Amino acid sequence: MKNITILGSTGSIGTQALEVIRDNPSIFKVFVLSALKNSDLLIKQAKEFKPEYVVICDETRYLYVKESLSNLNIKVLAGEDALAEVAAYPEIDIVLTAIMGSVGLKPTIAAIKAGKDIALANKETLVVAGELVTQLAKEHQVKILPVDSEHSAIFQCLVGEEQNEIEKIYLTASGGPFLGKDKNFLANVKKEQALKHPNWVMGAKITIDSASLMNKGLEVIEAKWLFNLSVDQIDVIVHPQSIIHSIVQFTDGSMKAQMGVPDMKLPIQYALNYPDRLKNNFKRFNFLEYPSFSFQKADLETFRNLDLAFTSLKKGGNMPCILNAANEIVVESFLKDEIGFLQMSEVIEQCMEEIKFIEKPQLSDYLETDKHTRILAAELVTKNKI
Amino acid sequence: MKNITILGSTGSIGTQALEVIRDNPSIFKVFVLSALKNSDLLIKQAKEFKPEYVVICDETRYLYVKESLSNLNIKVLAGEDALAEVAAYPEIDIVLTAIMGSVGLKPTIAAIKAGKDIALANKETLVVAGELVTQLAKEHQVKILPVDSEHSAIFQCLVGEEQNEIEKIYLTASGGPFLGKDKNFLANVKKEQALKHPNWVMGAKITIDSASLMNKGLEVIEAKWLFNLSVDQIDVIVHPQSIIHSIVQFTDGSMKAQMGVPDMKLPIQYALNYPDRLKNNFKRFNFLEYPSFSFQKADLETFRNLDLAFTSLKKGGNMPCILNAANEIVVESFLKDEIGFLQMSEVIEQCMEEIKFIEKPQLSDYLETDKHTRILAAELVTKNKI
Repeated sequence: MKNITILGSTGSIGTQALEVIRDNPSIFKVFVLSALKNSDLLIKQAKEFKPEYVVICDETRYLYVKESLSNLNIKVLAGEDALAEVAAYPEIDIVLTAIMGSVGLKPTIAAIKAGKDIALANKETLVVAGELVTQLAKEHQVKILPVDSEHSAIFQCLVGEEQNEIEKIYLTASGGPFLGKDKNFLANVKKEQALKHPNWVMGAKITIDSASLMNKGLEVIEAKWLFNLSVDQIDVIVHPQSIIHSIVQFTDGSMKAQMGVPDMKLPIQYALNYPDRLKNNFKRFNFLEYPSFSFQKADLETFRNLDLAFTSLKKGGNMPCILNAANEIVVESFLKDEIGFLQMSEVIEQCMEEIKFIEKPQLSDYLETDKHTRILAAELVTKNKI
Repeated sequence: MKNITILGSTGSIGTQALEVIRDNPSIFKVFVLSALKNSDLLIKQAKEFKPEYVVICDETRYLYVKESLSNLNIKVLAGEDALAEVAAYPEIDIVLTAIMGSVGLKPTIAAIKAGKDIALANKETLVVAGELVTQLAKEHQVKILPVDSEHSAIFQCLVGEEQNEIEKIYLTASGGPFLGKDKNFLANVKKEQALKHPNWVMGAKITIDSASLMNKGLEVIEAKWLFNLSVDQIDVIVHPQSIIHSIVQFTDGSMKAQMGVPDMKLPIQYALNYPDRLKNNFKRFNFLEYPSFSFQKADLETFRNLDLAFTSLKKGGNMPCILNAANEIVVESFLKDEIGFLQMSEVIEQCMEEIKFIEKPQLSDYLETDKHTRILAAELVTKNKI
């Protein structure tokens, strides 16, 4: 029986993880559930899964949650800082970081320091502080098990190949809802259009990131740290059908790909029960339903975010942290109709130019960079408001 | 340093294996070279690779080979029976069975009994006597390392997945030169057309088998034994680009595919040095050169050989042996312009109906079945001659 802490149980990954756990009650036990604000769903989940602990980050909802669960033997905590605490309890085997944004960094580090394996769905952790986090994981002999479908694909292709060198990886990209569109088109798109992803059902932030290709950029950075690669070993290939989830090429030229219908429950299940696969009744892929897979180069001129992500990774230091913090602000603003689609890249680029570059950042530097970038990005958004 | 016996060094697989060995002189040493008839190439290879032994199966060429190599310290043997002998010498680490047809069975069994790992390029070994051979390999703790690109693909996808069950495999098929053609067209094709394979450069027999889809049928049978599957766990999907070499689907629904440009040197190298991959300068795959992969159902009505292969496997016993022996005869006859393309299936089917079915054959039964089938098939060919 594996005791699991879910950081972010009410989001898209969190709820799908609970579906996986519900289907495998003899294998998984929910130890902690946590949510930012969605107290009603959190209460519902707690009633079903009966965890030992529940965390509501929004402290104003603490009493409501506490009272709602008062007849159950569940300890209720409040506040963001509680996440780091519940990620490190001795009974826990694995922490699923399904929380959105750089707020996932601190509890992930706490979990690693406590020797917990990490099922990593919070890519910002590695984007912001990949070097630090992977180094810590090594020191504490902790596994970082990717939940992103692309990284899970690479990870699955690497089992049994530990002694073999990677020549290159290809991260596949659906291209999002605006594949093939030009800048004139993008200048006028509305959030409703950007929120319609052709293949994947996900949260709002990651859906916007998919439309702008920033999601792929963050994945490139994540892949660098997860698989210990140099920038030029990582390529992005647009594959609109999203069936091949990513590809590894070894130094003998052989390539291995992981594929299947797009369904996040598979990589979640794989990470939670690695290295053993679990039988399930998820929809199976059928070649006759997909008679053609297509591939094309990513358009880095139109979708500048992906180019900015590569640039930040080449530059290194706190640059990916700047990219990520600025992106979190602009996506929020775009979702509030405060800025246009193309302005997102402009604000991010300006932040990358203006925020102080630090070549070898410590954790405190990352946190400072994150804070300063958010302030600057918010200012730039205000100036740019439509 | 691995000592290698190559059974069939002058054929397509044999010569490509020698290219791999030439590029890795610190890893591989040729211990035995052998050829059916091509004495000149055998002599040339022996002069370059300086094996301990050379076998020429055609005894009429023994003296010529012996004299040509007289100033080198190489022992020369003659006759088919010598193959079983040289496959079992104590110094040998691995035997590459690159010989064509059911003549590969006896030396393969001798090698297994002597505890040698087998790099299996002779699919007929498993087609004819898969149950017996895989059982022997288990008893003698011998690895059977597939060299066929499809089976190598599956094998590569299975490393590190030993504890996970296979739900299904998909063997990809290029469809050969007659993909999309109907029976009227096939009735009149000439060997020159059948010998033009769109993607792979191979020997004549296997190229005809690819055109008739019998090669895929034999691969289905081979896969059954190599990976311990039931017939309904094996599917064939036509993929004309031959980039995805085959696919495994696990019981969690996740699929792994191995892919790359079609080049037999890769699976040869992988089998010879399993599980370690070797760096090389083989051509790398580029998605932009292949912007589309397509997939379609195999046409079992037009290409009846594949259907007959599935039928033989469902029936079991000596039925695949009958299929294979009859096929060897009809391909030979087709290459001599003695029968038409469609008549090949007719003769095979008639042999499957007329030769005595044995449910639990011993080695001697297989050899008898093989002999009787060849006689009957030859008779049927004579009757059918154009």
